Parts: sequence; C-alpha cells; structure tokens
Amino acid sequence: MASVGDVSSQSMHFAQPLALRSGAQLRDYTLVYETYGTLNAKRSNAVLVCHALNASHHVAGTYAGQDPGWWDNLVGPGKPLDTNRFFVIGVNNPGSCFGSTGPMQSNPATGKPYGADFPVVTVEDWVDAQARLLDALGIVQLAAVLGGSLGGMQALSWSLRYPTRLRHCIAVASAPNLSAQNIAFNEVARRAIVTDPEFHAGHFYDHAALPRRGLRVARMLGHITYLSDDAMEAKFGRELANELLAYSTQDVEFQIESYLRYQGDKFSEYFDANTYLLITRALDYFDPACEFGGDLTAAFAPAVCKFQIISFTTDWRFAPARSREIVKALVDHKRDVSYAEIDAPHGHDAFLLDDVRYHALLRAYFERMVGEGA
Amino acid sequence: MASVGDVSSQSMHFAQPLALRSGAQLRDYTLVYETYGTLNAKRSNAVLVCHALNASHHVAGTYAGQDPGWWDNLVGPGKPLDTNRFFVIGVNNPGSCFGSTGPMQSNPATGKPYGADFPVVTVEDWVDAQARLLDALGIVQLAAVLGGSLGGMQALSWSLRYPTRLRHCIAVASAPNLSAQNIAFNEVARRAIVTDPEFHAGHFYDHAALPRRGLRVARMLGHITYLSDDAMEAKFGRELANELLAYSTQDVEFQIESYLRYQGDKFSEYFDANTYLLITRALDYFDPACEFGGDLTAAFAPAVCKFQIISFTTDWRFAPARSREIVKALVDHKRDVSYAEIDAPHGHDAFLLDDVRYHALLRAYFERMVGEGA
Repeated sequence: MASVGDVSSQSMHFAQPLALRSGAQLRDYTLVYETYGTLNAKRSNAVLVCHALNASHHVAGTYAGQDPGWWDNLVGPGKPLDTNRFFVIGVNNPGSCFGSTGPMQSNPATGKPYGADFPVVTVEDWVDAQARLLDALGIVQLAAVLGGSLGGMQALSWSLRYPTRLRHCIAVASAPNLSAQNIAFNEVARRAIVTDPEFHAGHFYDHAALPRRGLRVARMLGHITYLSDDAMEAKFGRELANELLAYSTQDVEFQIESYLRYQGDKFSEYFDANTYLLITRALDYFDPACEFGGDLTAAFAPAVCKFQIISFTTDWRFAPARSREIVKALVDHKRDVSYAEIDAPHGHDAFLLDDVRYHALLRAYFERMVGEGA
Repeated sequence: MASVGDVSSQSMHFAQPLALRSGAQLRDYTLVYETYGTLNAKRSNAVLVCHALNASHHVAGTYAGQDPGWWDNLVGPGKPLDTNRFFVIGVNNPGSCFGSTGPMQSNPATGKPYGADFPVVTVEDWVDAQARLLDALGIVQLAAVLGGSLGGMQALSWSLRYPTRLRHCIAVASAPNLSAQNIAFNEVARRAIVTDPEFHAGHFYDHAALPRRGLRVARMLGHITYLSDDAMEAKFGRELANELLAYSTQDVEFQIESYLRYQGDKFSEYFDANTYLLITRALDYFDPACEFGGDLTAAFAPAVCKFQIISFTTDWRFAPARSREIVKALVDHKRDVSYAEIDAPHGHDAFLLDDVRYHALLRAYFERMVGEGA
C-alpha cells in the first residue's frame, strides 16, 4: 500500500504560558507537528493522533525515504486511516525529546537546559496544548482523536476536557488509570535512571554526561511488559545465543538477553532520561476517576462523542479488563460505544502491528465516519 | 504453634573438590547448615529443605529469639513438617552469601575474595554438594526433599540425580525450566547490578565499594514478579504516600513506590551482588529436558520416588501450567504423583505464606509419610 511519502515536520511557537495541572506553568513553548492529507473546506475531516511513551509527531511517511513513522502501517493513502479522506495531525507533546519544548531545551529562566527543572506535565496538560494547536490551525471540531496506550489516555481525556471538539474517540490498548503493578514497573525504571551516577540529579547536560546505563535498564524492563509471555516464548524461548553455554554470569547466554540488550542500547542512544521520567509520571498520574472518588462512571459524565474502544487479549500491561472498565462507564451513560477485544498474540505491542482484524476494524470505523460526512 | 526455638547453625568443610557442571571445580568448600528434630535410629526420617534465591539454611527457629527462619510457619513441632517426627535439614548452597563458600569469601588461589571469579554453579551442583553433606551425616536415604521455587527445582533434580536416595519429592511453585520472560527479568536485574559503577566487574570488595544501586533495582523488580497483580492492587492500589500529589518525577507519590524502595534498600544491605548473579544464572540454566531435545518426559525417566507438586493460581512467575508440565512427564511414566493447584491470591510468594489449604495439604502428605514408616 502507498505511503504518504516523504514528509517534513512543522513547528509553532506559543507565547502564552500553559497552565499545568501541577499548579506550575510552562512559560512559553514550541510544538512540533506533522500533517498528512488535506483539510476539507468544512474543516471537518481532521483526525488527531496522540503518541505514547517513546513515539513522536512522526506518525506516518518518511524523512528523505528513511525512518517511517511509528504508525505508518495504519495512516496513509488507502490505509485504514485514509489520508485521501482525512487530514491527520501528529503532535509531539511538551516534555518529550523530539522537538517540542522539553527538558533538553533551554529554560528561559536560566539560559541552560531545563533538565530536571522541566515542569511535570500530565495527560490533561498535553491535551490542552494540543487544543491550542488546533485553535491555531483553525480546527474547531475534530472528526476523531485516536491513540494507543498512553495515546489512548489522551484520546479519553479529550472526550472529557473538550467534549464538543471531537465526534469520535478511539482508544486502543489503553486504561482508565495505571494499576499498582503498572506504577511499580515505572518506578523501577525511574530508579534505574535516577540512581545512575551519570544522571546528576537530572542536570547531566551540564556535565557532558548521559545516564545511558539507567536508560538501558529502563528500556529492557519496559520491553518485557510490551510483549506477551507467549510471544516472547514463541520468538525466543530458551534459544541460546551461541552454540554452547559459556557458564558466565555476565556474558549473553540466551537470545532473549541479546535482544533486550540491543533494545536497551538502541533506546539509550536517542531517548532523553528526563523525558522518560516525565512521561512515566504522566502515565502514573492519569486517573480521571480520582476527583470523583474513584467513580469512573461519574468521571465520564461530560463525554458526548462516539467511542471505539479496542483491547488485545494477550496485553497484560493494559489488559482487556481495563478497557472494559471504560466501556462500562460509557454504557452507564448510554453513550454510543463499540468495543472490540482482539485475539492477538503480541501483547501490548499489538496496537502498533498490522493485525488483520484490528486494522479491518479501524478501517470500517473510519469509513463509517466518512459516511457520516467527515 | 510452637517453634523449634533458638537454633544455631553448623558447618562442615569438604576438602575434596566439587566437580561443577560448567567443567570447572570448587577446590574445597564449606557448607553451613541447620537441623531440627532428631534423626531416628533407622536414619529414615530426614527431610532436606532446599532454599530459593534469597533464603538460606536458616529454615526454622530463631537466633537468640530473633530472625525466625524463612519457613518457620511450616517447620516445627506440631507444624505441617513436624519436627517431632522428622529430622529436618536446611543447607546453604555454595555461591550464596550466608556462610557457605561463596563469592564474598577468600579464593584459595589468590587469597582475596572470589568476587566474579567464583565459579558458576548450577542446581545440579548444589544437589551434588547437598548429597555429600548427607553422606557425611550418615543419611543414605531421605524421607523427602522439599523446596519452593528454585528450591523446588533442586527437589526435582534430586529425583533425577539420586533417584533412590529420596522417597518423596515435593516441589512447590516451581517449573521445569525458566521461560523467556523469566530469563528476561533475570537479565534486567543482572544488567542493573553489572552496570552499577560500584560493581567493579565483580571485584567491588577490593574497592571497598558495594553496588547497592544495582541491587536495589534488581530487588524491586524481583519483588514485582513475586506478587500477583491482584495482590498488589488489593494491598496498594493507587494509594498515595502523602495526602497530596507532589508532582515530582523523583519523589515518592504512591504507596507502592515507597514499599518497593523499602524492599530494595533492605535487600541491598544484606545481599551480595555476585551471589545475585550466580543464583539467577542457576535459575536460567536449570533445564533437565535440554539434553533430551526438550523432551521432559524423557528427562524424568530416572525418577522413581513419589511426587507432590503444588502450584498457586495467581503465580505468574511460575504459573500452574509449568507445574502441570512436570506432572504430565511423571504421569507419562506412571509415577506416583499428586498435584494440587491452590486458589491463592498472593502470586509466587504464596509458597512462603501459611495459606490454610496449602499447609493442610503438606501436613496430610507428611502424615502419610509417617504412616509409611518414615
């Protein structure tokens, strides 16, 4: 299938401070974004795609033929989210390390990189920043907000903060909040980073240092939670890295070790440690039911758009039961919600893969949207 | 119920080298052990209890009224493993850090601590060392070998290496080998330790350093895998550590974080980093089916004792399905095996807790053994 081809990112500066949920504010900031397809005359065919932990605004297409976007299998001409029909927007969230204002960039108050002084951002803050970008682009109402995992949390948050600014909310492999076990994994990853002596309390940029060791461990751990036990067993099992065992505590013995080390090494080359802390915290904090005493139904009272909720059977990070909590809250309000639990072996990562049933479902959902006049 | 009361450990030196599975040997070594109860005249009532990752020979009783043994709820006068009937032996395995020869102790070849030069030991090596201790104690045949988790692997290995030296094998919350996911978690823990700059390639003793940061992360991660998702949710959920959120990436926000940090800190005070590497490797390597092309039934051909296999429904580290693999292999040989899958909420840790049904089952099993004339 065709790709959107070579794309380039754009950026927009916002001089007005962004008030954050923590009480702090982001004095001024830049958002980097990409768009694919054409905004129609009615400005009614825009779809916002929200990114998860380690992704960015680069959703589809390539940079000079390289680096396909993270959801390129889903977004493009003739693809399930068809850029011949929809105007698709990917935005890099503040706090990230891919171009939007984040901890690697200069703190106007000091002239040095923000580092650990970058204010803590939440899903709600990101949604507010995204809404301002849409204001600037002249888009009053989105056809849909779509996201997987943490991106799905942003889509859900859109339906609560700006109920009339979207007609559809599509949350894939998501959850209404993190479980204790989810928070626990995040905390181990953060401790690995923060206790790396090269972290320098988050001001490693000033020390010409990088807490790569911590980032590697964090990523290795994250990777385990993205894959199902079965997928890992099928892909690696107890396969040895070399013909014979070396009987060593430090060398690689099993393929799975080699794979995880590779993933950790690669990640530590390009990802920012402070961003990792910020984004895992945004995950931890997301909990729309919290201010309603844990009553998710009460939290979803403002939502008026239509919902498509999708989960994957082998996802143990954000298990189907978590998606069903969202569905229940929406059904309690008699909202228009369809729910699909896809029997896929890949675990949480399934939301990024082109499982036939999953993509067919999204294709049908977006086609129906076109029928509705998006 | 009564405890065995105050106990003290004994030690025995072995001047004969121990040939290891790796091809290396342990030149000479000391084993530390404890015994409870009285060996009968026929020397037929001995039960060997094998320890798991972070435990030791101190199975039951107290040291001067303090520090109850790790299985004190199970072992004692009138307890399920009744020390009025049985002579119970706990042995600290070589490579450990609780008294038996291990990486913290002096390498006779150099006069310095072994550190990373301590040879890699396997479950099979431990079983051989335990068998030599029994030789020295004049015990030809054990009534039973009992162990949970990695201890269960040792019990299974006993049934294969010394089939006629035990009448019963009791393996709780165990597995015939580690899955790719199990190995993956071990590998992340090892990387956290090995990449701690204070590790000094395993010779931190010579640098008056301790890789505490790595050990903390390793233990925090381990702890997540010992608890079920549900147990963690029930115990901690999203409970905050303080009244209000601090909006901080580095401070504790949730109770689960505080709990994990505490567990990590405590562990890093007493556990040896090289031992952690060695023991996780022993877990990784255990795989009796390996030399039979993965055929577990073929691997269990030598076993002639009776078996009691126990698993816990919410144990996702060594799930019931793994225990059922063992049961199947034994049934294939028409061996005398009973299997219990206990519906307990605590995850892998359940094997250490005094769940009523679990303990009643073990009590009944040991009482039947007494009936058989143990």
